[in-house]
Amino acid sequence: MLALLKGGGRKTDEIAVLAGATGPLAQVVALARGAGVKISYRTRDQLTAIAGSPHHQGVVARVAAAEYADLDDLLEIPVERTEPAFFLALDQVQDPRNLGAVLRTADVFGVHGVIVPKHHQVGVTSAAARTAMGAADSVRVARETNLAAALERLKQSGVWIHGAAATGGVAPWDADLTGPLCLVLGSEGGGLRPLIARTCDVLLTVPMLGRVGSLNVSAAGAALCYEVVRQRSGRRKLLDLVKTEK
Amino acid sequence: MLALLKGGGRKTDEIAVLAGATGPLAQVVALARGAGVKISYRTRDQLTAIAGSPHHQGVVARVAAAEYADLDDLLEIPVERTEPAFFLALDQVQDPRNLGAVLRTADVFGVHGVIVPKHHQVGVTSAAARTAMGAADSVRVARETNLAAALERLKQSGVWIHGAAATGGVAPWDADLTGPLCLVLGSEGGGLRPLIARTCDVLLTVPMLGRVGSLNVSAAGAALCYEVVRQRSGRRKLLDLVKTEK
Repeated sequence: MLALLKGGGRKTDEIAVLAGATGPLAQVVALARGAGVKISYRTRDQLTAIAGSPHHQGVVARVAAAEYADLDDLLEIPVERTEPAFFLALDQVQDPRNLGAVLRTADVFGVHGVIVPKHHQVGVTSAAARTAMGAADSVRVARETNLAAALERLKQSGVWIHGAAATGGVAPWDADLTGPLCLVLGSEGGGLRPLIARTCDVLLTVPMLGRVGSLNVSAAGAALCYEVVRQRSGRRKLLDLVKTEK
Repeated sequence: MLALLKGGGRKTDEIAVLAGATGPLAQVVALARGAGVKISYRTRDQLTAIAGSPHHQGVVARVAAAEYADLDDLLEIPVERTEPAFFLALDQVQDPRNLGAVLRTADVFGVHGVIVPKHHQVGVTSAAARTAMGAADSVRVARETNLAAALERLKQSGVWIHGAAATGGVAPWDADLTGPLCLVLGSEGGGLRPLIARTCDVLLTVPMLGRVGSLNVSAAGAALCYEVVRQRSGRRKLLDLVKTEK
Protein backbone atom coordinates (compact mmCIF):
# COMPACT_ATOMS: atom_id res chain seq x y z
CA MET A 1 0.00 0.00 0.00
CA LEU A 2 2.79 2.44 0.95
CA ALA A 3 4.70 1.51 -2.20
CA LEU A 4 1.59 2.11 -4.28
CA LEU A 5 1.11 5.60 -2.82
CA LYS A 6 4.81 6.49 -2.94
CA GLY A 7 4.83 5.55 -6.63
CA GLY A 8 3.34 9.00 -7.30
CA GLY A 9 -0.28 8.38 -6.41
CA ARG A 10 -1.36 8.61 -10.07
CA LYS A 11 -2.68 5.09 -10.22
CA THR A 12 -4.61 5.16 -6.94
CA ASP A 13 -8.11 6.62 -7.27
CA GLU A 14 -9.26 6.39 -3.69
CA ILE A 15 -8.46 4.68 -0.39
CA ALA A 16 -10.97 3.46 2.18
CA VAL A 17 -9.50 3.32 5.71
CA LEU A 18 -10.73 1.88 8.99
CA ALA A 19 -12.31 4.74 10.98
CA GLY A 20 -10.20 5.80 14.01
CA ALA A 21 -7.08 4.02 12.73
CA THR A 22 -3.70 4.85 14.22
CA GLY A 23 -0.05 3.77 13.74
CA PRO A 24 0.92 2.63 10.22
CA LEU A 25 -2.62 3.36 8.95
CA ALA A 26 -2.28 7.02 9.99
CA GLN A 27 0.93 7.14 7.92
CA VAL A 28 -0.94 5.74 4.90
CA VAL A 29 -3.65 8.39 5.31
CA ALA A 30 -1.07 11.21 5.51
CA LEU A 31 0.68 9.94 2.40
CA ALA A 32 -2.59 9.56 0.51
CA ARG A 33 -3.62 13.09 1.48
CA GLY A 34 -0.27 14.41 0.24
CA ALA A 35 -0.71 12.58 -3.06
CA GLY A 36 -4.21 14.03 -3.61
CA VAL A 37 -5.88 10.63 -3.27
CA LYS A 38 -9.52 10.64 -2.10
CA ILE A 39 -9.92 9.15 1.41
CA SER A 40 -13.03 7.68 2.98
CA TYR A 41 -13.45 6.21 6.46
CA ARG A 42 -15.33 2.92 6.89
CA THR A 43 -16.15 0.24 9.45
CA ARG A 44 -14.30 -3.09 9.36
CA ASP A 45 -17.40 -4.77 7.87
CA GLN A 46 -17.64 -2.15 5.13
CA LEU A 47 -13.96 -2.61 4.27
CA THR A 48 -14.46 -6.37 4.08
CA ALA A 49 -17.38 -5.83 1.70
CA ILE A 50 -15.33 -3.45 -0.51
CA ALA A 51 -12.27 -5.73 -0.56
CA GLY A 52 -14.35 -8.88 -1.00
CA SER A 53 -12.12 -10.44 1.68
CA PRO A 54 -11.46 -9.93 5.43
CA HIS A 55 -7.67 -9.80 4.79
CA HIS A 56 -7.33 -6.07 4.26
CA GLN A 57 -5.37 -4.82 7.32
CA GLY A 58 -7.65 -1.83 7.70
CA VAL A 59 -7.14 -0.15 4.33
CA VAL A 60 -8.38 -0.80 0.78
CA ALA A 61 -7.22 1.11 -2.30
CA ARG A 62 -9.18 1.53 -5.49
CA VAL A 63 -6.53 1.44 -8.17
CA ALA A 64 -7.17 2.79 -11.62
CA ALA A 65 -7.14 0.14 -14.34
CA ALA A 66 -5.09 2.46 -16.54
CA GLU A 67 -2.37 5.00 -15.86
CA TYR A 68 -3.43 8.59 -16.24
CA ALA A 69 -1.65 11.04 -18.51
CA ASP A 70 -0.89 14.74 -18.03
CA LEU A 71 -2.64 17.38 -20.08
CA ASP A 72 0.76 18.22 -21.57
CA ASP A 73 1.18 14.59 -22.67
CA LEU A 74 -2.18 14.79 -24.45
CA LEU A 75 -1.29 18.05 -26.20
CA GLU A 76 1.79 16.41 -27.70
CA ILE A 77 -0.17 13.59 -29.39
CA PRO A 78 -1.73 15.63 -32.25
CA VAL A 79 1.64 17.33 -32.82
CA GLU A 80 3.36 13.94 -33.15
CA ARG A 81 0.65 12.69 -35.52
CA THR A 82 0.56 16.00 -37.45
CA GLU A 83 -3.23 16.05 -37.14
CA PRO A 84 -5.53 18.83 -35.87
CA ALA A 85 -6.13 18.15 -32.16
CA PHE A 86 -9.14 15.94 -31.38
CA PHE A 87 -9.83 15.67 -27.65
CA LEU A 88 -12.85 14.57 -25.69
CA ALA A 89 -13.69 15.84 -22.19
CA LEU A 90 -16.30 14.30 -19.90
CA ASP A 91 -17.99 16.39 -17.22
CA GLN A 92 -19.05 14.29 -14.22
CA VAL A 93 -19.96 11.04 -15.99
CA GLN A 94 -20.83 8.62 -13.18
CA ASP A 95 -21.39 5.22 -14.78
CA PRO A 96 -18.18 3.22 -15.43
CA ARG A 97 -19.89 1.44 -18.36
CA ASN A 98 -20.61 4.81 -19.97
CA LEU A 99 -16.99 5.86 -19.49
CA GLY A 100 -15.82 2.54 -20.94
CA ALA A 101 -18.16 2.89 -23.92
CA VAL A 102 -16.93 6.43 -24.57
CA LEU A 103 -13.28 5.26 -24.44
CA ARG A 104 -13.99 2.49 -26.94
CA THR A 105 -15.73 4.96 -29.27
CA ALA A 106 -12.90 7.48 -28.80
CA ASP A 107 -10.36 4.85 -29.85
CA VAL A 108 -12.29 3.92 -33.00
CA PHE A 109 -12.61 7.54 -34.10
CA GLY A 110 -8.95 8.34 -33.46
CA VAL A 111 -9.46 10.70 -30.52
CA HIS A 112 -6.05 11.87 -29.24
CA GLY A 113 -6.95 11.87 -25.57
CA VAL A 114 -9.78 12.04 -23.04
CA ILE A 115 -9.95 14.53 -20.16
CA VAL A 116 -12.01 13.79 -17.05
CA PRO A 117 -12.35 15.75 -13.81
CA LYS A 118 -10.89 14.19 -10.67
CA HIS A 119 -14.05 14.59 -8.56
CA HIS A 120 -17.70 13.60 -9.11
CA GLN A 121 -16.57 11.56 -12.08
CA VAL A 122 -15.88 7.86 -12.42
CA GLY A 123 -12.22 7.01 -13.12
CA VAL A 124 -10.85 4.30 -15.38
CA THR A 125 -11.96 1.50 -13.05
CA SER A 126 -11.83 -2.16 -13.97
CA ALA A 127 -15.56 -2.02 -14.92
CA ALA A 128 -14.88 0.88 -17.27
CA ALA A 129 -11.84 -0.90 -18.73
CA ARG A 130 -13.90 -4.06 -19.36
CA THR A 131 -16.55 -2.10 -21.29
CA ALA A 132 -13.79 -0.28 -23.18
CA MET A 133 -12.63 -3.63 -24.66
CA GLY A 134 -8.96 -2.67 -24.55
CA ALA A 135 -9.44 1.01 -25.40
CA ALA A 136 -8.49 1.97 -21.82
CA ASP A 137 -4.94 0.99 -22.78
CA SER A 138 -4.85 2.71 -26.17
CA VAL A 139 -6.62 6.02 -25.44
CA ARG A 140 -4.74 8.29 -23.02
CA VAL A 141 -6.83 9.72 -20.19
CA ALA A 142 -5.89 12.84 -18.19
CA ARG A 143 -7.56 13.51 -14.86
CA GLU A 144 -7.77 17.18 -13.92
CA THR A 145 -8.80 18.71 -10.58
CA ASN A 146 -10.40 21.68 -12.34
CA LEU A 147 -11.98 20.80 -15.68
CA ALA A 148 -12.82 24.41 -16.58
CA ALA A 149 -9.18 25.43 -16.02
CA ALA A 150 -8.01 22.47 -18.13
CA LEU A 151 -10.31 23.58 -20.97
CA GLU A 152 -8.91 27.13 -20.67
CA ARG A 153 -5.41 25.69 -21.03
CA LEU A 154 -6.49 23.84 -24.17
CA LYS A 155 -7.90 27.10 -25.55
CA GLN A 156 -4.55 28.81 -24.96
CA SER A 157 -3.00 26.05 -27.09
CA GLY A 158 -5.34 26.93 -29.95
CA VAL A 159 -7.91 24.18 -29.29
CA TRP A 160 -11.58 25.14 -29.73
CA ILE A 161 -13.98 23.86 -27.10
CA HIS A 162 -17.22 22.38 -28.47
CA GLY A 163 -19.76 21.41 -25.80
CA ALA A 164 -22.69 19.05 -26.35
CA ALA A 165 -25.91 20.74 -25.22
CA ALA A 166 -29.38 19.18 -25.18
CA THR A 167 -30.89 22.39 -26.55
CA GLY A 168 -29.85 25.74 -27.95
CA GLY A 169 -26.68 24.78 -29.82
CA VAL A 170 -26.01 24.61 -33.55
CA ALA A 171 -26.49 21.36 -35.47
CA PRO A 172 -23.11 19.56 -35.54
CA TRP A 173 -23.10 19.57 -39.36
CA ASP A 174 -23.42 23.38 -39.33
CA ALA A 175 -20.30 23.75 -37.15
CA ASP A 176 -16.79 23.58 -38.56
CA LEU A 177 -15.15 20.64 -36.79
CA THR A 178 -12.08 20.43 -39.01
CA GLY A 179 -9.77 22.54 -36.80
CA PRO A 180 -8.13 21.60 -33.46
CA LEU A 181 -10.95 20.91 -31.01
CA CYS A 182 -12.13 19.29 -27.80
CA LEU A 183 -15.67 17.91 -27.56
CA VAL A 184 -17.18 18.17 -24.06
CA LEU A 185 -19.93 15.76 -22.99
CA GLY A 186 -21.96 16.30 -19.81
CA SER A 187 -23.21 13.91 -17.18
CA GLU A 188 -25.98 11.37 -17.76
CA GLY A 189 -28.54 13.39 -15.83
CA GLY A 190 -27.64 17.04 -15.89
CA GLY A 191 -25.63 17.73 -19.03
CA LEU A 192 -22.83 20.29 -18.82
CA ARG A 193 -22.47 22.34 -15.63
CA PRO A 194 -23.08 26.08 -16.29
CA LEU A 195 -19.42 27.02 -15.76
CA ILE A 196 -18.30 24.35 -18.24
CA ALA A 197 -20.96 25.42 -20.77
CA ARG A 198 -19.75 29.04 -20.51
CA THR A 199 -16.17 27.87 -21.12
CA CYS A 200 -17.20 26.37 -24.47
CA ASP A 201 -16.58 28.34 -27.66
CA VAL A 202 -19.44 26.59 -29.46
CA LEU A 203 -22.41 24.53 -28.26
CA LEU A 204 -23.51 21.63 -30.45
CA THR A 205 -27.03 20.19 -30.32
CA VAL A 206 -27.93 16.94 -32.03
CA PRO A 207 -31.54 17.48 -33.23
CA MET A 208 -33.93 15.40 -31.11
CA LEU A 209 -36.80 14.05 -33.16
CA GLY A 210 -38.29 11.58 -30.69
CA ARG A 211 -40.17 11.51 -27.44
CA VAL A 212 -37.44 10.45 -25.00
CA GLY A 213 -35.62 13.72 -25.26
CA SER A 214 -31.92 12.99 -24.91
CA LEU A 215 -29.14 10.74 -26.12
CA ASN A 216 -27.16 8.62 -23.72
CA VAL A 217 -23.69 10.13 -23.20
CA SER A 218 -22.00 7.33 -25.14
CA ALA A 219 -24.46 7.65 -28.06
CA ALA A 220 -23.93 11.43 -28.14
CA GLY A 221 -20.19 10.81 -28.10
CA ALA A 222 -20.45 8.37 -31.01
CA ALA A 223 -22.56 10.74 -33.12
CA LEU A 224 -20.29 13.76 -32.49
CA CYS A 225 -17.01 11.88 -32.95
CA TYR A 226 -18.43 10.44 -36.17
CA GLU A 227 -19.21 13.97 -37.37
CA VAL A 228 -15.66 15.15 -36.64
CA VAL A 229 -14.20 12.24 -38.61
CA ARG A 230 -16.70 12.76 -41.44
CA GLN A 231 -15.87 16.43 -41.78
CA ARG A 232 -12.13 15.80 -41.63
CA SER A 233 -11.92 12.89 -44.03
CA GLY A 234 -14.96 13.62 -46.15
CA ARG A 235 -14.73 17.35 -46.70
CA ARG A 236 -12.73 17.13 -49.90
CA LYS A 237 -14.85 14.33 -51.39
CA LEU A 238 -18.07 16.12 -50.46
CA LEU A 239 -17.03 19.27 -52.29
CA ASP A 240 -16.23 17.16 -55.36
CA LEU A 241 -19.57 15.39 -55.09
CA VAL A 242 -21.57 18.59 -54.96
CA LYS A 243 -19.63 20.01 -57.93
CA THR A 244 -20.49 16.91 -59.95
CA GLU A 245 -24.16 17.01 -58.96
CA LYS A 246 -24.71 20.56 -60.13
CA MET B 1 -50.68 -18.26 -17.78
CA LEU B 2 -53.32 -19.67 -20.14
CA ALA B 3 -54.94 -16.22 -20.42
CA LEU B 4 -51.57 -14.70 -21.25
CA LEU B 5 -50.95 -17.19 -24.04
CA LYS B 6 -54.51 -17.04 -25.37
CA GLY B 7 -54.21 -13.25 -25.57
CA GLY B 8 -52.34 -13.83 -28.83
CA GLY B 9 -48.93 -14.75 -27.43
CA ARG B 10 -47.37 -11.53 -28.73
CA LYS B 11 -46.36 -10.32 -25.32
CA THR B 12 -44.85 -13.61 -24.13
CA ASP B 13 -41.22 -14.04 -25.15
CA GLU B 14 -40.53 -17.46 -23.71
CA ILE B 15 -41.85 -19.99 -21.22
CA ALA B 16 -39.78 -22.26 -19.01
CA VAL B 17 -41.64 -25.46 -18.04
CA LEU B 18 -40.94 -28.23 -15.55
CA ALA B 19 -39.35 -31.10 -17.50
CA GLY B 20 -41.65 -34.12 -17.87
CA ALA B 21 -44.76 -32.13 -16.96
CA THR B 22 -48.22 -33.53 -17.73
CA GLY B 23 -51.86 -32.45 -17.30
CA PRO B 24 -52.53 -28.68 -17.35
CA LEU B 25 -48.83 -27.99 -17.98
CA ALA B 26 -48.93 -30.04 -21.19
CA GLN B 27 -51.85 -27.85 -22.29
CA VAL B 28 -49.78 -24.71 -21.62
CA VAL B 29 -46.92 -26.14 -23.69
CA ALA B 30 -49.24 -26.97 -26.60
CA LEU B 31 -50.72 -23.49 -26.54
CA ALA B 32 -47.29 -21.83 -26.32
CA ARG B 33 -46.07 -23.93 -29.25
CA GLY B 34 -49.11 -22.88 -31.28
CA ALA B 35 -48.46 -19.21 -30.47
CA GLY B 36 -44.81 -19.47 -31.55
CA VAL B 37 -43.49 -18.86 -28.04
CA LYS B 38 -40.04 -20.27 -27.23
CA ILE B 39 -40.20 -23.18 -24.77
CA SER B 40 -37.43 -24.46 -22.52
CA TYR B 41 -37.56 -27.36 -20.06
CA ARG B 42 -36.07 -26.92 -16.59
CA THR B 43 -35.80 -28.62 -13.20
CA ARG B 44 -37.91 -27.37 -10.30
CA ASP B 45 -34.83 -25.68 -8.77
CA GLN B 46 -34.04 -23.91 -12.02
CA LEU B 47 -37.62 -22.65 -12.28
CA THR B 48 -37.45 -21.36 -8.71
CA ALA B 49 -34.24 -19.49 -9.57
CA ILE B 50 -35.80 -17.97 -12.72
CA ALA B 51 -39.02 -16.99 -10.96
CA GLY B 52 -37.22 -15.76 -7.85
CA SER B 53 -39.87 -17.67 -5.85
CA PRO B 54 -40.90 -21.31 -5.30
CA HIS B 55 -44.58 -20.46 -6.08
CA HIS B 56 -44.51 -21.06 -9.83
CA GLN B 57 -46.68 -24.18 -10.35
CA GLY B 58 -44.18 -25.62 -12.82
CA VAL B 59 -44.14 -22.89 -15.44
CA VAL B 60 -42.57 -19.41 -15.70
CA ALA B 61 -43.19 -16.97 -18.55
CA ARG B 62 -40.84 -14.21 -19.65
CA VAL B 63 -43.15 -11.44 -20.73
CA ALA B 64 -41.96 -8.63 -23.00
CA ALA B 65 -41.91 -5.18 -21.38
CA ALA B 66 -43.42 -3.73 -24.54
CA GLU B 67 -45.97 -5.01 -27.04
CA TYR B 68 -44.55 -6.00 -30.39
CA ALA B 69 -45.78 -4.60 -33.69
CA ASP B 70 -46.27 -6.30 -37.06
CA LEU B 71 -44.02 -5.48 -39.99
CA ASP B 72 -47.11 -4.09 -41.74
CA ASP B 73 -47.70 -1.75 -38.77
CA LEU B 74 -44.15 -0.46 -39.12
CA LEU B 75 -44.50 0.10 -42.88
CA GLU B 76 -47.51 2.36 -42.27
CA ILE B 77 -45.61 4.73 -39.96
CA PRO B 78 -43.51 6.55 -42.62
CA VAL B 79 -46.62 6.77 -44.84
CA GLU B 80 -48.55 8.44 -42.02
CA ARG B 81 -45.68 10.82 -41.29
CA THR B 82 -45.05 11.44 -45.03
CA GLU B 83 -41.35 10.80 -44.49
CA PRO B 84 -38.98 8.43 -46.33
CA ALA B 85 -38.95 5.17 -44.37
CA PHE B 86 -36.28 4.96 -41.65
CA PHE B 87 -36.10 1.50 -40.03
CA LEU B 88 -33.48 -0.19 -37.93
CA ALA B 89 -32.96 -3.98 -37.81
CA LEU B 90 -30.84 -5.80 -35.25
CA ASP B 91 -29.33 -9.18 -36.07
CA GLN B 92 -28.85 -11.30 -32.94
CA VAL B 93 -28.04 -8.60 -30.41
CA GLN B 94 -27.76 -10.44 -27.08
CA ASP B 95 -27.32 -7.80 -24.39
CA PRO B 96 -30.56 -6.20 -23.16
CA ARG B 97 -28.67 -3.01 -22.30
CA ASN B 98 -27.44 -2.75 -25.88
CA LEU B 99 -30.98 -3.24 -27.18
CA GLY B 100 -32.26 -0.62 -24.74
CA ALA B 101 -29.52 1.83 -25.76
CA VAL B 102 -30.34 1.29 -29.45
CA LEU B 103 -34.06 1.90 -28.78
CA ARG B 104 -33.29 5.15 -26.96
CA THR B 105 -31.04 6.28 -29.84
CA ALA B 106 -33.67 5.21 -32.39
CA ASP B 107 -36.28 7.34 -30.64
CA VAL B 108 -34.05 10.44 -30.58
CA PHE B 109 -33.27 10.15 -34.29
CA GLY B 110 -36.89 9.60 -35.31
CA VAL B 111 -36.55 5.98 -36.43
CA HIS B 112 -39.98 4.67 -37.53
CA GLY B 113 -39.55 1.18 -36.18
CA VAL B 114 -37.08 -1.48 -35.09
CA ILE B 115 -37.04 -5.07 -36.39
CA VAL B 116 -35.49 -7.89 -34.38
CA PRO B 117 -35.39 -11.63 -35.07
CA LYS B 118 -37.38 -13.87 -32.73
CA HIS B 119 -34.50 -16.25 -31.98
CA HIS B 120 -30.92 -15.72 -30.73
CA GLN B 121 -31.84 -12.14 -30.00
CA VAL B 122 -32.81 -10.44 -26.77
CA GLY B 123 -36.41 -9.16 -26.70
CA VAL B 124 -37.72 -5.97 -25.14
CA THR B 125 -37.19 -7.25 -21.59
CA SER B 126 -37.53 -5.08 -18.51
CA ALA B 127 -33.72 -4.59 -18.45
CA ALA B 128 -33.81 -3.36 -22.05
CA ALA B 129 -36.79 -1.11 -21.30
CA ARG B 130 -34.97 0.41 -18.31
CA THR B 131 -31.93 1.30 -20.44
CA ALA B 132 -34.23 2.66 -23.14
CA MET B 133 -35.49 5.32 -20.68
CA GLY B 134 -39.05 5.22 -22.02
CA ALA B 135 -38.13 4.66 -25.67
CA ALA B 136 -39.44 1.07 -25.47
CA ASP B 137 -42.91 2.63 -25.36
CA SER B 138 -42.39 5.18 -28.12
CA VAL B 139 -40.45 3.16 -30.72
CA ARG B 140 -42.39 0.28 -32.25
CA VAL B 141 -40.57 -3.06 -32.34
CA ALA B 142 -41.47 -5.93 -34.69
CA ARG B 143 -40.19 -9.43 -33.97
CA GLU B 144 -39.76 -11.61 -37.04
CA THR B 145 -39.04 -15.33 -37.17
CA ASN B 146 -36.98 -14.91 -40.34
CA LEU B 147 -35.06 -11.63 -40.44
CA ALA B 148 -33.78 -12.15 -44.00
CA ALA B 149 -37.37 -12.71 -45.23
CA ALA B 150 -38.51 -9.60 -43.36
CA LEU B 151 -35.78 -7.54 -45.04
CA GLU B 152 -36.87 -8.94 -48.44
CA ARG B 153 -40.42 -7.80 -47.68
CA LEU B 154 -39.10 -4.32 -46.88
CA LYS B 155 -37.24 -4.31 -50.20
CA GLN B 156 -40.47 -5.17 -52.03
CA SER B 157 -41.98 -2.08 -50.40
CA GLY B 158 -39.21 0.07 -51.87
CA VAL B 159 -37.02 0.18 -48.77
CA TRP B 160 -33.25 -0.07 -49.32
CA ILE B 161 -31.32 -2.28 -46.91
CA HIS B 162 -28.08 -0.78 -45.57
CA GLY B 163 -26.00 -3.14 -43.42
CA ALA B 164 -23.27 -2.04 -41.03
CA ALA B 165 -20.08 -3.99 -41.80
CA ALA B 166 -16.81 -3.78 -39.87
CA THR B 167 -14.85 -3.78 -43.13
CA GLY B 168 -15.39 -3.58 -46.87
CA GLY B 169 -18.36 -1.22 -47.03
CA VAL B 170 -18.55 2.38 -48.25
CA ALA B 171 -18.13 5.27 -45.82
CA PRO B 172 -21.61 6.28 -44.61
CA TRP B 173 -21.12 9.82 -45.92
CA ASP B 174 -20.47 8.42 -49.41
CA ALA B 175 -23.81 6.55 -49.43
CA ASP B 176 -27.11 8.24 -50.22
CA LEU B 177 -29.22 7.77 -47.10
CA THR B 178 -31.98 10.20 -48.04
CA GLY B 179 -34.35 7.60 -49.56
CA PRO B 180 -36.48 4.97 -47.76
CA LEU B 181 -34.08 2.69 -45.90
CA CYS B 182 -33.48 0.16 -43.17
CA LEU B 183 -30.15 0.10 -41.32
CA VAL B 184 -29.08 -3.38 -40.16
CA LEU B 185 -26.72 -3.77 -37.19
CA GLY B 186 -25.08 -7.09 -36.34
CA SER B 187 -24.42 -8.81 -33.05
CA GLU B 188 -21.84 -7.63 -30.51
CA GLY B 189 -19.39 -10.37 -31.40
CA GLY B 190 -19.93 -11.51 -34.93
CA GLY B 191 -21.42 -8.66 -36.92
CA LEU B 192 -23.99 -9.51 -39.62
CA ARG B 193 -24.58 -13.17 -40.47
CA PRO B 194 -23.54 -13.95 -44.09
CA LEU B 195 -27.15 -14.43 -45.27
CA ILE B 196 -28.15 -11.08 -43.78
CA ALA B 197 -25.10 -9.35 -45.29
CA ARG B 198 -26.01 -10.77 -48.73
CA THR B 199 -29.57 -9.46 -48.33
CA CYS B 200 -28.26 -5.91 -47.95
CA ASP B 201 -28.28 -3.56 -50.94
CA VAL B 202 -25.38 -1.54 -49.54
CA LEU B 203 -22.79 -2.19 -46.83
CA LEU B 204 -21.69 0.77 -44.75
CA THR B 205 -18.37 0.85 -42.89
CA VAL B 206 -17.55 3.50 -40.33
CA PRO B 207 -13.79 4.10 -40.77
CA MET B 208 -11.90 2.65 -37.81
CA LEU B 209 -8.91 4.78 -36.89
CA GLY B 210 -7.99 3.21 -33.55
CA ARG B 211 -6.58 0.05 -32.10
CA VAL B 212 -9.70 -1.61 -30.64
CA GLY B 213 -11.16 -2.34 -34.01
CA SER B 214 -14.91 -2.08 -33.69
CA LEU B 215 -17.69 0.10 -32.40
CA ASN B 216 -20.14 -1.21 -29.86
CA VAL B 217 -23.51 -1.91 -31.55
CA SER B 218 -25.18 1.04 -29.82
CA ALA B 219 -22.34 3.42 -30.78
CA ALA B 220 -22.51 2.20 -34.40
CA GLY B 221 -26.28 2.73 -34.31
CA ALA B 222 -25.85 6.27 -32.98
CA ALA B 223 -23.28 7.20 -35.65
CA LEU B 224 -25.32 5.75 -38.53
CA CYS B 225 -28.68 7.15 -37.36
CA TYR B 226 -26.99 10.53 -36.95
CA GLU B 227 -25.74 10.30 -40.54
CA VAL B 228 -29.24 9.54 -41.85
CA VAL B 229 -30.69 12.54 -39.99
CA ARG B 230 -27.81 14.75 -41.13
CA GLN B 231 -28.26 13.84 -44.77
CA ARG B 232 -32.02 14.28 -44.61
CA SER B 233 -32.20 17.55 -42.74
CA GLY B 234 -28.85 18.98 -43.67
CA ARG B 235 -28.58 18.22 -47.37
CA ARG B 236 -30.15 21.46 -48.53
CA LYS B 237 -28.19 23.63 -46.07
CA LEU B 238 -24.95 21.88 -46.90
CA LEU B 239 -25.35 22.57 -50.60
CA ASP B 240 -25.99 26.24 -49.80
CA LEU B 241 -22.95 26.34 -47.52
CA VAL B 242 -20.63 24.91 -50.14
CA LYS B 243 -21.95 27.33 -52.77
CA THR B 244 -21.22 30.26 -50.44
CA GLU B 245 -17.73 28.99 -49.67
CA LYS B 246 -16.67 28.80 -53.30
